[in-house]
This record gives sequence, C-alpha cells and structure tokens, in this order.
Amino acid sequence: MPQGTPIAIPADGLTTRQRREQPLLIVHTGENKGKSTAAFGLALRAWNAGWSIGVFQFVKSARWKVGEEGALTALGRVHEQTGEGGPVEWHKMGAGWSWSRRAGTEENHAADAAEGWAEIKRRLAAQQHDLYVLDEFTYPMKWGWVDVAEVVATLRDRPGRQHVVITGRTAHPDLIDAADLVTEMTKVKHPMDVGRKGQRGIEW
Amino acid sequence: MPQGTPIAIPADGLTTRQRREQPLLIVHTGENKGKSTAAFGLALRAWNAGWSIGVFQFVKSARWKVGEEGALTALGRVHEQTGEGGPVEWHKMGAGWSWSRRAGTEENHAADAAEGWAEIKRRLAAQQHDLYVLDEFTYPMKWGWVDVAEVVATLRDRPGRQHVVITGRTAHPDLIDAADLVTEMTKVKHPMDVGRKGQRGIEW
Repeated sequence: MPQGTPIAIPADGLTTRQRREQPLLIVHTGENKGKSTAAFGLALRAWNAGWSIGVFQFVKSARWKVGEEGALTALGRVHEQTGEGGPVEWHKMGAGWSWSRRAGTEENHAADAAEGWAEIKRRLAAQQHDLYVLDEFTYPMKWGWVDVAEVVATLRDRPGRQHVVITGRTAHPDLIDAADLVTEMTKVKHPMDVGRKGQRGIEW
Repeated sequence: MPQGTPIAIPADGLTTRQRREQPLLIVHTGENKGKSTAAFGLALRAWNAGWSIGVFQFVKSARWKVGEEGALTALGRVHEQTGEGGPVEWHKMGAGWSWSRRAGTEENHAADAAEGWAEIKRRLAAQQHDLYVLDEFTYPMKWGWVDVAEVVATLRDRPGRQHVVITGRTAHPDLIDAADLVTEMTKVKHPMDVGRKGQRGIEW
C-alpha cells in the first residue's frame, strides 16, 4: 500500500480513516486524450474492490461501442458468474438510455441529456452505486442541457460513500470548485499533429 | 467511430490507413494522478480489440497488487476461457520478475530494473505483444538504471506494429522526443492538499 503524506491536516475533528473514506468527486478535464481512459482505469480498481459501478456516456452518437465498454461489461459478467469483483452497468445516451422506453434521437440531445441526469440523481439518492462515471458530462453542463447549480448541489449533497468521476473538456468552474480531485490532461504531443488519424485499440 | 481531422497531412508517401496503423509510442507524464490509470484504461481497449497485452511494473515494492492487476488479469482469464478479448500478462519488479528465477531484492533495484528492460527488449524483437505498458519506467531511465540512449533507440527501431505506453513523472527529453503521443497529467486540485489520504478502490 502506498504511503502518502498530506501537506496539511485539517482541524475538522475527523480521524484519518474517516477523512480517507470520504467519497470523492473527481474531474478529468483538459485538451488531450486520457480523460475518459483514466476514468475507465479507475473503474478497474473499483471493480477489483467489489464496488458497484455505473457508467453513463453523455455522447451524442453512442451507437458505436468503445473498447472499454466491451472490457468493463465482460468484467461485469465475471462478477455475475463467479462473484469476483463488482457489478457493472453501462448506459449510453446516443441510442437511447437503456432504462428509458424512448429511443435517443439526433434531434433532441438536450432532452436526452436531461433524462440521463434525472436518472443519475435518482440513483444518487438511492445510493445505488459506489462509483459513477459521468463520461463527457461537462458538455451538457456547458451547453445548458442540465442546470449547473442543481447538478453541483446534488453532487455536493449526495448521501453515503458514492464516488463520482466526471470527464470532458472545459469543466464548469463551479464543478471544479466542488470537486476533490481535478486533473487536467495537457497535450504535449499528439499524432494528429503529424497527420495520423486514430486507430482501433488506441482511440476506441 | 469518431472522426478526427489531422491539422497537417505529411508528404510521407503513406496512405491514411498506413499512417493510421503505425504503432505508437505513448508517454503519460506530469505530477498528478491518472498516468498509470489512463495506461491501464488503454489496455481495456486493447483487450477488447483482441490484442496481446504485456504489463511491466517498474516499482520498487510491487508486493501489493493494484486493483488494475486484479481486473486486467481477470480479463486475461476470460480470454483463456472464452476466446473473447486478448491475452494479458502482468509482470512486476518488486517481488522479482515472474520469468526470472531470482527474487527481487530491496537492495538491488538497479539490477532488477535492468533485467526487466532486457526482457522487454527481447519481447520487442520477437514481436511478442501488441501493447506494452511500461509502468513507472521513467524512473529507471532517470536514475541511470537503464541506458537512455539504448532504450530510446530500441523503442524507435522496434519492428512490426507494437504499441508502447510508458508512465511516470519527469520523462526524459529524449523519450518525449521519440514519442508519438505525450500527455501531461497536471494537478489542478488533489485531496491530499486538504489532508485526505488515499483510499482503496481509488488510489490502488
């Protein structure tokens, strides 16, 4: 187990264990690759810890399946069959949320996104998952498809020990402010700069 | 499938497909969390694409098992049992490399690291894997445990279509120079700043 040394000990009356076990709100933002990838990497750890994982992909055209979906849902099946790890649910907006009777439409992304957030809010209230990955959720926040103040308040006040990871560029300042851990993925060098397009296994 | 628009098309005589399918040398560096996590997230995609994955953890005390190891080796077993996805090998330095008869020692990290690199070099020559994760390999490079010029030349000249991801802080400039994709994980905010230590499922 890695030993970390906090640079300050807050006078909050909590023990180290209590403080350690506080749920985290994590944001992966910035211009370069790695935001979603690192979030799904976190889900690997969560699976191994036996946590219930809910992934919600807020992307406009999620008819195609990213590699992480195949791999994480395979881990979900391992859990169902052997009890190893934790359960995994993977929901995506583009084709219509799986809990919704309504198909997603190309015309109404705002309503689709709002419907996704409403379900996440219900699940947070019910403490349904241990880790939520809200992939590309910064965009519905940026575009006004969900109410930023309500999202931030709901996340701040969520009950129990539920970890939430939100990915996407240009994270709203109020979200950054509410978050416990914020990492910016900064581009140093990218193959597209020299005319190389994405490839299977690397980009999706 | 996502559509990316390269900002420049090189006059290298290659087709888009040929250029796209060139193997990548990827570096995840910077001060914040997410470097290894994003590398293991990439391994999820690679697994789903049916690639052979070799993970090599260059850490001094790898007796403890990170969550990603549990999850990715579970995916390796899924592959063995059902043929789904790709094979996964996970090797770590701290307890002695699994292919080596010699146990790792607390005293001789330099020799352990050199032995790890020698094996990776053999595997690259034999084109054994499609994706190599060299976790925390920037440190053996920094500390002179491996020869930087030889490492960079070996990576540059590796045959076939083998992708390599190297993680760790303070990546050597020659490695950055040789890499196709470099992402720096920049700290915006971290729970340790407010006295919160790491927790299972999030940090390991």
